[in-house]
This record gives sequence, structure tokens and C-alpha cells, in this order.
Amino acid sequence: MANPILVEALRGGVVESRHRGAVAVVDADGGTVLSLGEVERPVFPRSAVKAIQALPLIESGTADALRFGNREIALACASHTGEPAHVELARAMLARVGLDETALECGAHWPTSHEATIALARQGGSPGALHNNCSGKHSGFLCTCVQAGIDHRGYVGQGHPLQDMVREALEGVTGAVHAVDACGTDGCSIPTYAVPLMALARGFARMASGAGLSAARAAAAKRLFAACTAEPFYVAGTGCADTAMMQAGGGRLFTKGGAEGVFCAAIPELGLGIAIKCDDGAGRAAEVMIAATLARLLPEGDRLRTALAAMAEPTLKNWRGIEVGGLRPAGPLAPQRPADMTR
Amino acid sequence: MANPILVEALRGGVVESRHRGAVAVVDADGGTVLSLGEVERPVFPRSAVKAIQALPLIESGTADALRFGNREIALACASHTGEPAHVELARAMLARVGLDETALECGAHWPTSHEATIALARQGGSPGALHNNCSGKHSGFLCTCVQAGIDHRGYVGQGHPLQDMVREALEGVTGAVHAVDACGTDGCSIPTYAVPLMALARGFARMASGAGLSAARAAAAKRLFAACTAEPFYVAGTGCADTAMMQAGGGRLFTKGGAEGVFCAAIPELGLGIAIKCDDGAGRAAEVMIAATLARLLPEGDRLRTALAAMAEPTLKNWRGIEVGGLRPAGPLAPQRPADMTR
Repeated sequence: MANPILVEALRGGVVESRHRGAVAVVDADGGTVLSLGEVERPVFPRSAVKAIQALPLIESGTADALRFGNREIALACASHTGEPAHVELARAMLARVGLDETALECGAHWPTSHEATIALARQGGSPGALHNNCSGKHSGFLCTCVQAGIDHRGYVGQGHPLQDMVREALEGVTGAVHAVDACGTDGCSIPTYAVPLMALARGFARMASGAGLSAARAAAAKRLFAACTAEPFYVAGTGCADTAMMQAGGGRLFTKGGAEGVFCAAIPELGLGIAIKCDDGAGRAAEVMIAATLARLLPEGDRLRTALAAMAEPTLKNWRGIEVGGLRPAGPLAPQRPADMTR
Repeated sequence: MANPILVEALRGGVVESRHRGAVAVVDADGGTVLSLGEVERPVFPRSAVKAIQALPLIESGTADALRFGNREIALACASHTGEPAHVELARAMLARVGLDETALECGAHWPTSHEATIALARQGGSPGALHNNCSGKHSGFLCTCVQAGIDHRGYVGQGHPLQDMVREALEGVTGAVHAVDACGTDGCSIPTYAVPLMALARGFARMASGAGLSAARAAAAKRLFAACTAEPFYVAGTGCADTAMMQAGGGRLFTKGGAEGVFCAAIPELGLGIAIKCDDGAGRAAEVMIAATLARLLPEGDRLRTALAAMAEPTLKNWRGIEVGGLRPAGPLAPQRPADMTR
């Protein structure tokens, strides 16, 4: 069975491209609230689980010992755009434990922000590991190693004590087995484990509500969410979907995207955890899917619902700034129009 | 009915993402050689029909009058990467008719080549309309206007005499109605008309074989293909699929990609025209689909078949250069493995 078409790309009045996907929404008791498509098929969550991967940073007492505030904690959960504020904060985090960017094992790439790339090139600069979109997470990993007295070298590898801590957190929160034979290597070189979308949604419902977690883990999850929602720029960057959605949410939403069309999210006031995957891996479509899903979970008349519904229908402009089309949620994610409600 | 999955993206040993699509292959007599998925659904060909859109440049005598060689003609059919050689050749084409980049109505953008963007920024430069990937096509349009004594202003608009010439060429070659109600605006601001994939394949079979075309149009098509296959760098650029496939082809293949996952292609020695569309618009998957389709149309043991089959299975590396997965043709496009043949 093919997953349903959830997003359409329009040009003129014609549907030009179509994106299929799956959506899982779970409540604090683990009950299924929404299930579209194959939600039991294993999916690599990639960067969408960075907040879970950051649990050891809090639980080990590292964040407290280093007096990390919301910004540092948000950056440890981030896929940032390599803007100067991100790069300098990652550098400062490493400096707290006497390390510098040479300790990072995530690899170097030009900032994902086009503007930051142009500015860096104009200054005659070159990209380093601090510009890697994962450098905040890796700085958090390195700080955790140093504070725990673990040799940080090789911290990205499967079997390193730090990755064992991360895997324990992922298994504990999602309840899914993280198996070696379903393990791939992420863009930043750490292991990523394929688990069912439904388990990811369950994990984020637990992160949001604390249900099913130890008191210490529930408190750590709450602190991570509070940091990310307070400092959404440090979770992504200028113009990014996560930043825009969490800014609009004003503390009511947590969202985090990952490569290949994945998003995990939570609405703590409703105790809901959400996970989506665009079959073809397109970020543009995953952004529409998560915004449309979050919108429909909020009550009619809620201004945040309206804001998210608008984000789910972006317009597309060409190089001269002419509006040439747009994206819209489709099929079971299409907003209920008045005509539909009369049927 | 959903189109079949034609490409899989793998990470570790797990399929991470899936791309669906449709494929049409037609012979010189208009007979269907291969049909996968919905080949009668209208598709915007976008830049994949630039060679057809360049017919007026040849047929009007403009290319002869301006003594354009293979490079200029190839650039008129190009989606180029904005490398310096592309930019300077487009500038020179305009200069032949006394125009400069201020006449271009395609809009400005940074080069699609990341290296060219970095180099331009390091020099303190800014992108102009000549860097637009369509600037060669637009320079060809402008030259055609000037030589034909047509006021070039507004040449991108539907109803301008130049766009009427382009539409006549598209309808004549593909045999499909190019209707105003199936018209969108392309990235470079010219009209793009949605037509069935099967009609695009038929058009490229005619371009390749001359069958069904007037002698003058058949000669113009032959000249366009000869120019593109002789100068594939000027059709795209460093590292691009079209350039790589036509370089490997050594004159035996014509290919041209378009935005949103479209490719048109031809194998003149077999009289075949090919058109593919990736449902979700992903370029990475469209490149696999076209390479895999072209490979299977060539005879076993042909070295070009082997080269194309290899291009259809690219590996994916992460930021540290570690191989983390790859793309591969799937379902009806999967290569026949020895095990399959014993069944």
C-alpha cells in the first residue's frame, strides 16, 4: 500500500509535484490520536531526535556544572544554519571544558544559511567544523564526555561510552529497540537507528508530558523543551521552519526537523507527541506536513492554529519575485473547507 | 493508481526514502517502447525542452547570421551552472546584437555551482542576470528578436511574438496542444505548458530522427543536438548529470533535465525519444531514473550502457567523506540481477 499524498506543489493552476508520507500522533497515555500511512515502518529520525540525544547532557549534571543557559542547551539540540551567533556559541561551549573545534568529529561544511556562506566567503573565510549544522550537539557531547571523565576521542562511534548513553536515552524514551542491523551513519558521523514512526511519536509524547519517564528524566526533558522553545533561533536559524514554528508557538510547541523529510514535535499542553516522514525525503514537503498536522491538533479559533495553517501553504516565487505557485497540504491533511463539512 | 517506486535512497542497509515516477519511451514511428506509470498526465517540462525552444534561433537564420558555433548553440539550450565560461559566452552572444545583460528578463541569482558562488563572493562580486542558469536561452531569444526585427522588450511574456514562435515549435514537435489553461510561469519567467509525458517522448524521438518534421526543422534539430553533444559543458556544467551523461555518450546521447524532476532525452542511433518525471520533483531521483532508463535501452555489452548503469547507482557520502548510503533504481527500473534471470 502506498502512503497517501499529503502535499501538492502547484504551478499556475496545475499540480506539478506530489509528496507522500506518514503521520503518527500519540497522547500521553500512549494512545493513537492520528495515524496516516505506514506508521510502523522503521524510519531514520536523523536530527529530529536531537533533544532526546541531549538528555545525557542534562542528566549527567554537565549542563548544570558548566552553567549552561537556555541558549547553550538549545544549541545542543540544534541543526543550526552556521550563522555567526551559532558558531561563536558552540566555540564558547567547547572552551568551558578546555576544548576547541579540533575536538569536533562532525566534519566541516559551508553554513546551510546562504547569507552566512556569502558573508564568510566575502571575508575570505573557509568553513570549519563549528559551521557544521550539528556542531552544537557535538559540543554538548564533548562537554558531557569531559565532565564524566570519559576519553572523548572517537565519541561519534558506535560502542563509545557517550553513544551508549545516547542510545540508552533513545531506547528508554521511545520504547523501541535500537538495533545494530537497523543502524546507519548520520551526516555528522554518529549512529542513527531506524525505528517506527509511531515509537518516535510516543517518545515525544513522553518528553512533553513526562508520562512513563523517571522523575529525573522527565525533569531533564522539560528543561530541554523549555530551552528550545525559549530560544528557537538557536535550534535552527533565520528563516528556518523550526525557528518560525516555535517563535509562533510562544512556548506552546516543540518541533525539530531532520534530514530526509522527518519531523518530531510535541504540544505539551495537550500531552501530544507527533512524528512525520515524507516518503521521498523532501524538506519542503515535510515542513508543510508538520505545520498542517500541528494546526489540526489545536482547537478552532486558536490563533496558533491559524498561524500554522498559513505556514502550511507557502507561496513559491521565481527569480524575479513573481508568484508562480505554492505548496499545500493534500488528501487527509487538506484543511476542511466549508464545502467538505456539508458532506 | 500510484506511480511505481523507481528509485530508493539507502542508508546503511535500510531504504530511507522512496521516489515514484513515470517513464515514456517512443520510437521514430511514434510507437511506445516503454511506458511506466501515468504517461498521459500533463507535466510541465520546464527546462527539459530548451532544445525545442531553441528551434527558432536556428530556423530564423539567426545562428547562421551571427556565426554561432556549437558552444553558443549549446548555451542557448542550457541550464548552466553560472561558471565564468558560461557567463562570458552569454555576454558575448548578447554583444553580437548590440545588447547587454540589462536586456535579460530572466532575473538574477547566485550561480547554481557552489564553487562558482564562493569564487564570486570572494571576488566581492554579486550575481546578475548573466549568472541565471537560463541566461544562454534568454540570450538566444534576444538575438532571435533583434535579427527578426522584433522589439525584444517583454520577450518573456505570453503573446510576445518570440513566445509565439517558441510555442509553435513546441506544438509542432510534440504534437500536443499547449493550452493557456495548462500554462504556468517558469523560474526564468517564460511560459511553461503542461503536456503529457508521452508527447514529450514523441517530440524527442522526432528531434532525434527527423521523422514527422519538415526538412528545415529536421535539419535545425540535428544541428541543435550536434552542438549540445559536442559541447556538453555548455549545456550544464561541472559535475552536472547532463554534462556527465553526454560526455560519456560521445555524441550518441542527448539529455536535458528540467526543474521538478523532469528529463527529456534521445538516442538518435535508435531513433528513440525519452521523457521521465519524478512525482515529487527531486532532481537526485530524476537523474537516477534517466540514467537507468537510457542504460536499459542500449544493448548488453555496450560500454555506454555500463557507464550509465553506474551513474544510476551513486553513493552518498557524509561531511567527513564517509560512505553512508546511496541511490539505486528500483521496481521496474531495477537492473536485472543474475538471480532474477533464473526465475
